[in-house]
Amino acid sequence: MSAADPATFRWDVARRARTGLPEVAYAEGKSIAQLVHVFRVWQGHGAPGLATRVRPEQAAALVAAFPAIVSDALARTATLPARDPDREFPACAGDVVVVCAGTSDLAVAHEALATARFLGLSATLVADVGVAGLDRLLAVRDRLTRADVIVCVAGMEGALPSVVAGLVRAPVVAVPTSVGYGASLLGVTPLLAMLTSCAPGVVVVNIDNGFGAACAAWRILHAGRPRPEPA
Amino acid sequence: MSAADPATFRWDVARRARTGLPEVAYAEGKSIAQLVHVFRVWQGHGAPGLATRVRPEQAAALVAAFPAIVSDALARTATLPARDPDREFPACAGDVVVVCAGTSDLAVAHEALATARFLGLSATLVADVGVAGLDRLLAVRDRLTRADVIVCVAGMEGALPSVVAGLVRAPVVAVPTSVGYGASLLGVTPLLAMLTSCAPGVVVVNIDNGFGAACAAWRILHAGRPRPEPA
Amino acid sequence: MSAADPATFRWDVARRARTGLPEVAYAEGKSIAQLVHVFRVWQGHGAPGLATRVRPEQAAALVAAFPAIVSDALARTATLPARDPDREFPACAGDVVVVCAGTSDLAVAHEALATARFLGLSATLVADVGVAGLDRLLAVRDRLTRADVIVCVAGMEGALPSVVAGLVRAPVVAVPTSVGYGASLLGVTPLLAMLTSCAPGVVVVNIDNGFGAACAAWRILHAGRPRPEPA
Amino acid sequence: MSAADPATFRWDVARRARTGLPEVAYAEGKSIAQLVHVFRVWQGHGAPGLATRVRPEQAAALVAAFPAIVSDALARTATLPARDPDREFPACAGDVVVVCAGTSDLAVAHEALATARFLGLSATLVADVGVAGLDRLLAVRDRLTRADVIVCVAGMEGALPSVVAGLVRAPVVAVPTSVGYGASLLGVTPLLAMLTSCAPGVVVVNIDNGFGAACAAWRILHAGRPRPEPA
Amino acid sequence: MSAADPATFRWDVARRARTGLPEVAYAEGKSIAQLVHVFRVWQGHGAPGLATRVRPEQAAALVAAFPAIVSDALARTATLPARDPDREFPACAGDVVVVCAGTSDLAVAHEALATARFLGLSATLVADVGVAGLDRLLAVRDRLTRADVIVCVAGMEGALPSVVAGLVRAPVVAVPTSVGYGASLLGVTPLLAMLTSCAPGVVVVNIDNGFGAACAAWRILHAGRPRPEPA
Amino acid sequence: MSAADPATFRWDVARRARTGLPEVAYAEGKSIAQLVHVFRVWQGHGAPGLATRVRPEQAAALVAAFPAIVSDALARTATLPARDPDREFPACAGDVVVVCAGTSDLAVAHEALATARFLGLSATLVADVGVAGLDRLLAVRDRLTRADVIVCVAGMEGALPSVVAGLVRAPVVAVPTSVGYGASLLGVTPLLAMLTSCAPGVVVVNIDNGFGAACAAWRILHAGRPRPEPA
Amino acid sequence: MSAADPATFRWDVARRARTGLPEVAYAEGKSIAQLVHVFRVWQGHGAPGLATRVRPEQAAALVAAFPAIVSDALARTATLPARDPDREFPACAGDVVVVCAGTSDLAVAHEALATARFLGLSATLVADVGVAGLDRLLAVRDRLTRADVIVCVAGMEGALPSVVAGLVRAPVVAVPTSVGYGASLLGVTPLLAMLTSCAPGVVVVNIDNGFGAACAAWRILHAGRPRPEPA
Amino acid sequence: MSAADPATFRWDVARRARTGLPEVAYAEGKSIAQLVHVFRVWQGHGAPGLATRVRPEQAAALVAAFPAIVSDALARTATLPARDPDREFPACAGDVVVVCAGTSDLAVAHEALATARFLGLSATLVADVGVAGLDRLLAVRDRLTRADVIVCVAGMEGALPSVVAGLVRAPVVAVPTSVGYGASLLGVTPLLAMLTSCAPGVVVVNIDNGFGAACAAWRILHAGRPRPEPA
Repeated sequence: MSAADPATFRWDVARRARTGLPEVAYAEGKSIAQLVHVFRVWQGHGAPGLATRVRPEQAAALVAAFPAIVSDALARTATLPARDPDREFPACAGDVVVVCAGTSDLAVAHEALATARFLGLSATLVADVGVAGLDRLLAVRDRLTRADVIVCVAGMEGALPSVVAGLVRAPVVAVPTSVGYGASLLGVTPLLAMLTSCAPGVVVVNIDNGFGAACAAWRILHAGRPRPEPA
Repeated sequence: MSAADPATFRWDVARRARTGLPEVAYAEGKSIAQLVHVFRVWQGHGAPGLATRVRPEQAAALVAAFPAIVSDALARTATLPARDPDREFPACAGDVVVVCAGTSDLAVAHEALATARFLGLSATLVADVGVAGLDRLLAVRDRLTRADVIVCVAGMEGALPSVVAGLVRAPVVAVPTSVGYGASLLGVTPLLAMLTSCAPGVVVVNIDNGFGAACAAWRILHAGRPRPEPA
Repeated sequence: MSAADPATFRWDVARRARTGLPEVAYAEGKSIAQLVHVFRVWQGHGAPGLATRVRPEQAAALVAAFPAIVSDALARTATLPARDPDREFPACAGDVVVVCAGTSDLAVAHEALATARFLGLSATLVADVGVAGLDRLLAVRDRLTRADVIVCVAGMEGALPSVVAGLVRAPVVAVPTSVGYGASLLGVTPLLAMLTSCAPGVVVVNIDNGFGAACAAWRILHAGRPRPEPA
Repeated sequence: MSAADPATFRWDVARRARTGLPEVAYAEGKSIAQLVHVFRVWQGHGAPGLATRVRPEQAAALVAAFPAIVSDALARTATLPARDPDREFPACAGDVVVVCAGTSDLAVAHEALATARFLGLSATLVADVGVAGLDRLLAVRDRLTRADVIVCVAGMEGALPSVVAGLVRAPVVAVPTSVGYGASLLGVTPLLAMLTSCAPGVVVVNIDNGFGAACAAWRILHAGRPRPEPA
Repeated sequence: MSAADPATFRWDVARRARTGLPEVAYAEGKSIAQLVHVFRVWQGHGAPGLATRVRPEQAAALVAAFPAIVSDALARTATLPARDPDREFPACAGDVVVVCAGTSDLAVAHEALATARFLGLSATLVADVGVAGLDRLLAVRDRLTRADVIVCVAGMEGALPSVVAGLVRAPVVAVPTSVGYGASLLGVTPLLAMLTSCAPGVVVVNIDNGFGAACAAWRILHAGRPRPEPA
Repeated sequence: MSAADPATFRWDVARRARTGLPEVAYAEGKSIAQLVHVFRVWQGHGAPGLATRVRPEQAAALVAAFPAIVSDALARTATLPARDPDREFPACAGDVVVVCAGTSDLAVAHEALATARFLGLSATLVADVGVAGLDRLLAVRDRLTRADVIVCVAGMEGALPSVVAGLVRAPVVAVPTSVGYGASLLGVTPLLAMLTSCAPGVVVVNIDNGFGAACAAWRILHAGRPRPEPA
Repeated sequence: MSAADPATFRWDVARRARTGLPEVAYAEGKSIAQLVHVFRVWQGHGAPGLATRVRPEQAAALVAAFPAIVSDALARTATLPARDPDREFPACAGDVVVVCAGTSDLAVAHEALATARFLGLSATLVADVGVAGLDRLLAVRDRLTRADVIVCVAGMEGALPSVVAGLVRAPVVAVPTSVGYGASLLGVTPLLAMLTSCAPGVVVVNIDNGFGAACAAWRILHAGRPRPEPA
Repeated sequence: MSAADPATFRWDVARRARTGLPEVAYAEGKSIAQLVHVFRVWQGHGAPGLATRVRPEQAAALVAAFPAIVSDALARTATLPARDPDREFPACAGDVVVVCAGTSDLAVAHEALATARFLGLSATLVADVGVAGLDRLLAVRDRLTRADVIVCVAGMEGALPSVVAGLVRAPVVAVPTSVGYGASLLGVTPLLAMLTSCAPGVVVVNIDNGFGAACAAWRILHAGRPRPEPA
């Protein structure tokens, strides 16, 4: 979308038909006029809409312009239900658990939750289970074992995905966060740690990318299944 | 497993029961005596066995000791069928496509293929589809669209997963390779590129980690399904 | 140019005679007084002038001081036509196409466009052609094939130059942008990706350096041609 | 090309038609059987062939198999003339000067020279002109000024392209080399230095990538010209 | 010690008096003549001696020269008992547990064990307790809880110290190892992960530095105690 | 603790029983409401409380809410005495010396001091002893020699721990600080320097982590001693 | 100097006697009260005083408190003449030339100039001699050849010291600056380039460290000379 | 000098006249034929010659070809006295002390010594004075104080220059070495530490660059003196 002129925005209409996932708006660096324009285009098509990394003043302006928009302050998302119910994402049976360790990972975890729910997934948060308090993690072991996909959000040393993936069969999508200071290198340390996990089959997305993890969960839960939804 | 004394090897017998995936042997840095010991333990349990990063002399010694072992020189793997057929990995209906661009990615792609097949998955290779020859990639577009999981192996600038994930609904597990020189930084460049893919839902594993990508594919294809196999 | 005192500015008068390209002003960190002084010197010589990375308040002050200055808010440039028409850059027949993928690359793309036009080049923008939406890129394939020089601007994984250079004969000047977060490392990731492109003959300039890419295009389009313009 | 089996090699026949530049063989990591196979395919099509990074034993085997192959030990290249003269690269009028500073840059400079000549370009070497001996550089200033494209090869601090680009109008393609020790970081230091050159319009390729620089020179010298050669 | 001439070796005789810990020999890069000379000096003073990173041929030569030397092939150490029993390190009551996860960490773990025992400490190895098999770690939880100092050796994602330090009161000295490939960056990844541990009070030594960890354990177990041994 | 809702805070009540060290609050990124809530929970249990990295406005609000809280502006800590005296940390006999070199390290040194005292340790500051003024360091040599644990705080080249550890028997916990500019890389340089110290037995914590160093000192001084305090 | 309390400042009185260079105040992060206190101590001893990195409001407060202080806004320094003329630095015969390339290096160059003059050196600025305009550099070649010490300040690719050191016999102290963007990595690129200079005998100081370069010049010009000044 | 053909070697005859320092041969990567050729050219001019980083077999061949060559195995240098005594470097009165800490730094220290003596300087080695054994350093304090220039060679944490420069007035040229493992990052850690030294006026050269340090010492000792020697 052009930063210069909202009117230059060309929506990749065919993306959802190709990949199942629609184009969304990354709000960082966009003007309010641009964001409003994008949601207007989506509304015009009857399609649902999602913006991520929405700052409070952007959220306020969007809600003022579109009363149907739901703004999630913690997740920093804004979602617009589809005007055309057939365009809404159909509910998916899979059970996504978003697990995180500490306070600072909550914003990213909530971005994953909000995105997953926008995409029709059923998603639950399990927080406060850092590896330094193993008893709390073991207390939710059954909940994790029942999950179909686990999104595992952690900063600092990023050890949580290794421990979780050693306990369950489900795919584990690891999301490093930029939480921490000094040697955490703005999230590069948990990123590297997750990539070198000793638990086989852990997969990783970019730092703070809760949105991407939810998209991966959507792809995973639709793997090997017929296409139910329209373009 | 102890590098000092094969007898100190303690097999994590319960891992497969917990996670579906068994412990395997990473042959780099192991002596032939150690490798033989590990396969003997597995054989004693009737379980199937897999070793990765097997050098030619290790492979020869393993085949001499266990005629049933199948050695794949390109994938650098050695696999032992289960003595007890009930311990074999049941065939999985999903369709895994391993796609790679150039010559140098083939060893990693074959490690993914061999691991996937060891785990009971059906896996196919689509090679020679680098992004600088887009016509060749578009020629296999239908094949990619039909896949249930795509493992996408690429070195150098690591652009292939972005292009592929923009064409399909399936989960895309990206594997950066250490192919290239200079600014490819032994695979760090494609790793970073894949993590910052503009296509939503791409997930990434460690550099050259074909094994891990196949494990991720296994987890993905079993997500939301009942557990069919024994501990 | 001295930051302390505009009067210490010594214009490299001979640079255009030596290299065809004149000294320009990089506005970042310069005071308004300094910028005004520089344009005054240029105007005194009858020469055209260009400033890059001009902030809004700098642009306003320059336009107030020199009504002939054209300020481009998106490109962050200010250009002063030559008082002496013989000093203007002669129009060049070549066809420069500036291609970029997403919203966030537009400022850099427009810096390239504005610089190219200042130097007498004919330059066109082709936006919204990220590699995750290959169909949109293929839709402009003919336009790219006709270009004499392509300036390819991309952030995140920086894959666009590889795909474009595999489709055309023209020189491809790749400009990485600092767009993205986390593993994009402020533009270092697309920079490294472009340098390791699997498409032969891609050349790269510094992160966000739209100005430098346009200068390279000027050098390329004048390669092997007689010198038409005065010192 | 498959490392496993020469027969899996699929030549991107259409690449030259699309981009003007043919697929070549990067010999590093290829077996002699694979290299021989590739040249045989090229010979079968009547096309010319080029391999880079050829080790002495590979070169000897290639020359034994194809007496027409010319091996350049310093450039580490092997070139096969086209059996079909119409497939040969037509001579190009442009004047390419490959300039380098010290001994250690010579292998990379010669790779650029050999590639350029394979592509039909006229290319000359100007060596021993490091910036610490400015008088020697100034002694060849006229030669540099007459060049249509300059390929500038330098290791260590990589300062040569900045100095050269401040003296000439021609495009300057900078090639950092892995020459040096300690803080030269295997070529990363000259790479970064060239990217931040204070001379506008310097473009950069990967470390030690003489081949890529010559391809860029070919693209530059054909910019804005009709296509003379067949697919 | 001079690499040129064994005779230039000047033993820091006073180090043990100052710090409790004697000078030892780091064998990497030393000739056999030099190593023999150093042990001769120590023997002449009646002092015990330790060499680390001893290669097999160095070990063989040392044992041939000093039959009393004990060589540990896995730890890569050589130790000479004190000729003067008063110079021997007195036994220390503390209980050091060296815990590690996988095969590849064993050499470093054994260097810590051998150094600890040379210094008079009582040290035990607990291996095979990687965080991906949490049950095995929990099985030794009591053993860890009883330890006075824990040396925690881990490569790859380096998560073990975080988990262990969340279970026990003892000081945890974390030793990252260069085990792993790709994103483990030769041990830099577990090093960074251990430094950013979410468990308070974890301390870290250099990559593969089992020797340093044992020295730290010695310092810790003598903290706040009277000096028992002679200079 | 949830950033969204103070009420979601779940205190790891058992941590002190397991490890001797309680959960504390890292104030960075927490709202005043959250901080107040945490201290209320602690007060409700009769437990003492500590917050680190407290900004002035957070400190003022905490003191207003809990008059018993002691705020240390230089250390950026807030401490709440235990309502239940049995929950207070018992005084520990050991002698902790926090030594630092320059002005800029003082905030980190004071965080170590405040944390140590909160944990019942006796801690003293020795400042202004940078290695470039060796005479000042030698003047306090006796004081250092008497210490049971030394916390050594340094920025820039981080040389102080090496010098100190060569003079004393006590454990040396090195804390790199983000003091310095340019090549100090925000504390990475002293971090690396401390990890490669030539003095055996130096251990290191994260950049600016005075809190962690004090926790390590607590663990060290309780090593090999019976547990005196209640959960 | 303590950040907490000016009174804790302990001046290293003996430093000038030991090394010839006095302790100075690095103003970044210091309060005005602290700065005033330091100058008061110096004034009390009759000694001259220097503060670097002084912000405008700090400078204003210092001049208000000490009318004799000279504030240099461009160099960001504040200097206090010695109350006791015998404590002033004696004039030194050597000729220091501070040479820099562009606008953005001027602040660092002036810090070097101001420090040099404070230390009694004779120092001259030669600006605007970047390597991309070689003619301007050659125009001052004679001036450079006459210098006794050259301080060479450059950002971006940092090539100036290599060119200058190839023209003169004098020691060349290179100062990289944080000028530039993207691949200049906040000054790391010119730092690395200067360290790998192909001109023998170039020495380097930290990024933006004009102060340190002047101190090095002082040491150089007093090398091998009797000590003229009092402690 | 051309690696391909010794005859292409063009000696920068004028370098010594310009800068006082002659061109020398860096033997790494040069053939014996090339080295012999270079010394022959020097001998033909009557000039003295120096090669650095000479491997044993290169040294043997050079001594066989030129009996006057002196080979220093530890320094890895080969020096040829001038056939024409007027071309020899005149003895310089200054006193250079090369100080180093440990065994592994000795090769670099000896390269500095051999180069310094080749250039006519008087140079002495002071070894075994690492900062972890401060008493040994203080024992040579007087020797250091008398030096005119100190070359300070250190690996690992690179703390020696900071300590030395705090004790003396002489210029301190710091040489980081690639000694150490893990976090020493092949010498990058001591390099960074030396650049951020808290002792003002420390200057730094590239990793392992004993040659460059000696050249810097030569420049320093000739600063402000008339030119005594011929071109």
